[in-house]
Amino acid sequence: MQTLDWNSLDTKQQSAILERPALGDSAKLSALVSDIIHQVRTQGDQAIHQLTQKFDGLELDSLKVSQAEIDASEDELGDDIKQAIQLAKAQIERFHQAQVAPVIKVETSPGVVCELHTQPIESVGLYIPGGTAPLPSTVLMLATPARIAGCKRLVLATPPGKDGRIKAEIRYTAKICQIDEIYMVGGAQAIAALAYGTESIKKVLKIFGPGNSFVTEAKQQVSQDHKGASIDMPAGPSEVLVIADDTAKPEFVASDLLSQAEHGKDSQVILVTNSQAQAKACEAEVLRQVALLPRQEIAEGALSHSRIIITDSIEQSIEVSNEYAPEHLIVQTQDARALLPKLENAGSIFLGEFSPESAGDYASGTNHVLPTYGYTRTYSSLSLADFTKRYTVQELTAQGIQSIGPAIMNLAAAESLDAHKNAVAVRLQYLSQSNDGASS
Amino acid sequence: MQTLDWNSLDTKQQSAILERPALGDSAKLSALVSDIIHQVRTQGDQAIHQLTQKFDGLELDSLKVSQAEIDASEDELGDDIKQAIQLAKAQIERFHQAQVAPVIKVETSPGVVCELHTQPIESVGLYIPGGTAPLPSTVLMLATPARIAGCKRLVLATPPGKDGRIKAEIRYTAKICQIDEIYMVGGAQAIAALAYGTESIKKVLKIFGPGNSFVTEAKQQVSQDHKGASIDMPAGPSEVLVIADDTAKPEFVASDLLSQAEHGKDSQVILVTNSQAQAKACEAEVLRQVALLPRQEIAEGALSHSRIIITDSIEQSIEVSNEYAPEHLIVQTQDARALLPKLENAGSIFLGEFSPESAGDYASGTNHVLPTYGYTRTYSSLSLADFTKRYTVQELTAQGIQSIGPAIMNLAAAESLDAHKNAVAVRLQYLSQSNDGASS
Repeated sequence: MQTLDWNSLDTKQQSAILERPALGDSAKLSALVSDIIHQVRTQGDQAIHQLTQKFDGLELDSLKVSQAEIDASEDELGDDIKQAIQLAKAQIERFHQAQVAPVIKVETSPGVVCELHTQPIESVGLYIPGGTAPLPSTVLMLATPARIAGCKRLVLATPPGKDGRIKAEIRYTAKICQIDEIYMVGGAQAIAALAYGTESIKKVLKIFGPGNSFVTEAKQQVSQDHKGASIDMPAGPSEVLVIADDTAKPEFVASDLLSQAEHGKDSQVILVTNSQAQAKACEAEVLRQVALLPRQEIAEGALSHSRIIITDSIEQSIEVSNEYAPEHLIVQTQDARALLPKLENAGSIFLGEFSPESAGDYASGTNHVLPTYGYTRTYSSLSLADFTKRYTVQELTAQGIQSIGPAIMNLAAAESLDAHKNAVAVRLQYLSQSNDGASS
Repeated sequence: MQTLDWNSLDTKQQSAILERPALGDSAKLSALVSDIIHQVRTQGDQAIHQLTQKFDGLELDSLKVSQAEIDASEDELGDDIKQAIQLAKAQIERFHQAQVAPVIKVETSPGVVCELHTQPIESVGLYIPGGTAPLPSTVLMLATPARIAGCKRLVLATPPGKDGRIKAEIRYTAKICQIDEIYMVGGAQAIAALAYGTESIKKVLKIFGPGNSFVTEAKQQVSQDHKGASIDMPAGPSEVLVIADDTAKPEFVASDLLSQAEHGKDSQVILVTNSQAQAKACEAEVLRQVALLPRQEIAEGALSHSRIIITDSIEQSIEVSNEYAPEHLIVQTQDARALLPKLENAGSIFLGEFSPESAGDYASGTNHVLPTYGYTRTYSSLSLADFTKRYTVQELTAQGIQSIGPAIMNLAAAESLDAHKNAVAVRLQYLSQSNDGASS
């Protein structure tokens, strides 16, 4: 990790060291993904089977995971992991259940009632990446809010392993989350199938979940087509920023930095501290701990473009964090909570020495699907709201339209929209005639 | 308007008549807009001035509207319109103020506190289209929630009129909404300037507001670039669907259909009714009223691809509406409110005979920026939430990490993420040593 003194840098250099690592050749990726989507749209299941053979080296009889295969997961797993999954599920449920939005109803003027309601998105696709390890935690993070929101159809897609099966942890988690359908398909072809449908996979309205660059690009592409599907949020490499003062325990800080670094070589890890001694101690601890990790090579890859930034105060450390806009922000300082009102642009904040990032990744109850790559400036942490849509309702009485009608007519006239004005005029005229009739 | 009997159509025909009108040549538009964005990014203000000369035929000394020019609007407008704008502002404020989200705080397990907070998006760009008439209502719909949310910088961009000035209604509304900066620039070049900044226009983080196809395409393009800006929602032509039974007043229904039709030739207008007699009466009223409109030609253009659909029941009328997923849904039936729980996929719903669409367009208090073109299935009506972002906070005590720590370690092990497991292990080990120390 490179150590830099923030105050020895000029503004340009400061911006430069907070830059995200550049992504790969996007034009080439875009063309490849566009071609895969086209194949799936025109040839359906046949294309999925061909692409699965090409990318996963597998010939599958059926894309759909059978109920028997799902049920078998119960016997394939030990009690420890099943109980851990259940505990995490209960935690995530408690936090997301509390996010159910009440109807907001306001009488803005006598006889003018305005309401804000939410409704579940009818069908959702949950993408779970493949790779060397199963990710049951991501199933929990996507399926739990979808169920609480009341989505009618939950469809999970994930690439099969080399044995042509889905890992038991994924099947088990999907089962207890009452996922309706599980398909063995990964990559851009999975996103295309979810967005447009095939003979065996019915289309969904919105797609959630992380993935590699093909998955991310495919999500972007289908979200740009109104016949495709909406998506949760744009994605980029994962990242953490830790603010530490001289009271932080280097062993804890290092373990948190490495939790992020082991995700991938493109992960970014930043420590910001107002203590030179702390910077040195944390770096030494990182070097000690990384050597013990099975994923040492990946973590070292991430560390090679990661940074320790030394500031002259906690306030300046906060400024650096607010400018960087991290996905995960860990605050290990004296009275971390007191800093909360000053923290901006973070996806999820971890306060104090006993709140490691891995708590939020698995079981505190917060969602681990978060905006990355600077998107925390405008995008939200995944939450119940993402599985619903808001809409408004208004109901005016005769008194209501009589009260605000003249203002509407004035505004419509100013905008030269005569039919808008007329829609009020015919009603006011009707009411005035009714009143005349009543009084005669 | 074409009248169709829903039950005489097969499923394919039913889907076909609910199709949105196709949009123009997107590849050509995309290239044109991409070029404009490139010009603005590389040449800044100079490009803006050149493009303003090209598209608006104007040579402007300054892009920024002066404070004197803003203040002058007070004297240029009559009391009637100023009061109407103030009334609408107060209505919109009341409804959006009620949307302020409380912090959600849940102790998911003893010692594990999870919170959901919101924070304003720091800087927002509000685009107000030009054209023949000023649109002060759109200024209200964008600036009011931005102010309530607490956005620090509100920047308005709108094309100047032929006289090189912004209409007084826009300047006045911007003034009373405390907009910080107003720039005379329209089209794709305005979106590029807001997203990337120029010498005289500082970049914003998120761009809101409607516009023509150039604006819409530019918003899409800048939202795909992480150095660009986020946007409110995808856009398409505006639309209304009216559900009416035989109790509806044809004069009211027709006035609402025409309110939508006068927006543009690409607007779509649909009447769904279970009454043959109502269908005929409404059509006759539409023909009578449209002939009286100054924007008759535009309205007739919209009507040419609009439809009256006859169903055999109110329930079936609702099914048609739910499938179409309209931006605006007007319900003029006996006891309209009783139907509300069955209505799906609508951006804004207008209940009963005294709730015309123009009430929501101007002054009921609801927002008139709504998802169109079928996007109501997954996107939300513009609301306070769009000017903020949600983020989570978690704080664990020693008891908290001891309680959920073992489950986290189990899950991390199942996902082969040893550093994640270790971040908990070092803390549990520390606590166990502290306890040993305390008890020795």
